[in-house]
Amino acid sequence: MIDLVGLDGDDTLWHSEEYFARTGDALADLLGHYAEDERLRALMLERERANLALFGYGVKGFTLSMIETASEISEGRVSTAEIQAIIDAGKDLLGHPVDLLDGVAQTVATLAATHRVVIITKGDLFHQETKVATSGLADVVHGVEIVTEKDPATYRRVLERQATSPERFVMVGNSMRSDVLPVLELGGHAVHIPYHVTWELEVAERPDARHDRFHELERLADLPDLVSGL
Amino acid sequence: MIDLVGLDGDDTLWHSEEYFARTGDALADLLGHYAEDERLRALMLERERANLALFGYGVKGFTLSMIETASEISEGRVSTAEIQAIIDAGKDLLGHPVDLLDGVAQTVATLAATHRVVIITKGDLFHQETKVATSGLADVVHGVEIVTEKDPATYRRVLERQATSPERFVMVGNSMRSDVLPVLELGGHAVHIPYHVTWELEVAERPDARHDRFHELERLADLPDLVSGL
Repeated sequence: MIDLVGLDGDDTLWHSEEYFARTGDALADLLGHYAEDERLRALMLERERANLALFGYGVKGFTLSMIETASEISEGRVSTAEIQAIIDAGKDLLGHPVDLLDGVAQTVATLAATHRVVIITKGDLFHQETKVATSGLADVVHGVEIVTEKDPATYRRVLERQATSPERFVMVGNSMRSDVLPVLELGGHAVHIPYHVTWELEVAERPDARHDRFHELERLADLPDLVSGL
Repeated sequence: MIDLVGLDGDDTLWHSEEYFARTGDALADLLGHYAEDERLRALMLERERANLALFGYGVKGFTLSMIETASEISEGRVSTAEIQAIIDAGKDLLGHPVDLLDGVAQTVATLAATHRVVIITKGDLFHQETKVATSGLADVVHGVEIVTEKDPATYRRVLERQATSPERFVMVGNSMRSDVLPVLELGGHAVHIPYHVTWELEVAERPDARHDRFHELERLADLPDLVSGL
């Protein structure tokens, strides 16, 4: 019997990566006169990867990585108007209203009527708190855990705080790397619900489909049935 | 009798504002050929204030505000080398080793032997977690609460989570605005220990010195005696 349902935030409850991807497209347009699209995107990914250990996840670090990319790709010719356009794109991302995926509000309410439900989301504390607060879900779920990395140690701490054990926990999210693999490793259940865009740094191999604690759904609306059968 | 001691992190347990101030000085030097020192510092403060609602506290937002200041003060003439120097200054701040104030390790250990001690620190989750982890204090204290804002609602939530009441709680820190006033408002005890630099956005009026739940100390080493007498 499942005692605790963990729901990822970005790209599981609300749209996020789509906006990052659009901002990446806008950056490629903005800087298109300095370099080819492919080279620019490769450099941006390299900057993001290199800065991750110092910046962590989130829009502000993403914005700083875009500025570094612009400096480097333009060989110093980037204009301050272009730099300001990048900062403004970052501000637009931070200020973007929360847009829930289809059926989320209803499904979370259904789940929360029968199970303890906790949002477990990764990234910038300030931005994630704002998103949770404006999502309309804060009063529906039983808790919110904002973490810097979703690895087995983090999930172990969350389960301790929530006073439950891995075998009574199911984590639900769009990222194999962050929502599925570390939870299976701990002995918990995991449900993968793919989102139509995946950030390259979140890509990971899928577990064996025969794994008996691993499940896949196309949409969150099917989750209550799956959870009640676990 | 005090049940829970809350300790602020930045500028109470470890140095922080001094490094921000030095980075501000370096920015003034870097951009000194565009504008007078005073105008530059005023503009930087204005940018920080304007961006706070979107960025929250922390180094990454500070770095983005520095870049905006550089763009604006130079009227678009800032070079990419100067922009990169600003980003590098931000990275230096993020990567700066944690440097405890004098006597902190010993005092926290003394306090933790007789009371529940929790670090309550504000700002960027990723950076604050890194600071706590490398401070050597994580295993000495009983908990760590990283929050986005220190207002009465935040302290109320922390006290609920820690299962105690304001009259059994004492908060200790260098900021009147964040560590003292909201806790007194809730009915808790507060100890102000000034740091030699205060960020202008943290400046607030001191409470009446005759307030019976407000205390002032010159150094953390005097805290165990004060707490045992409350």
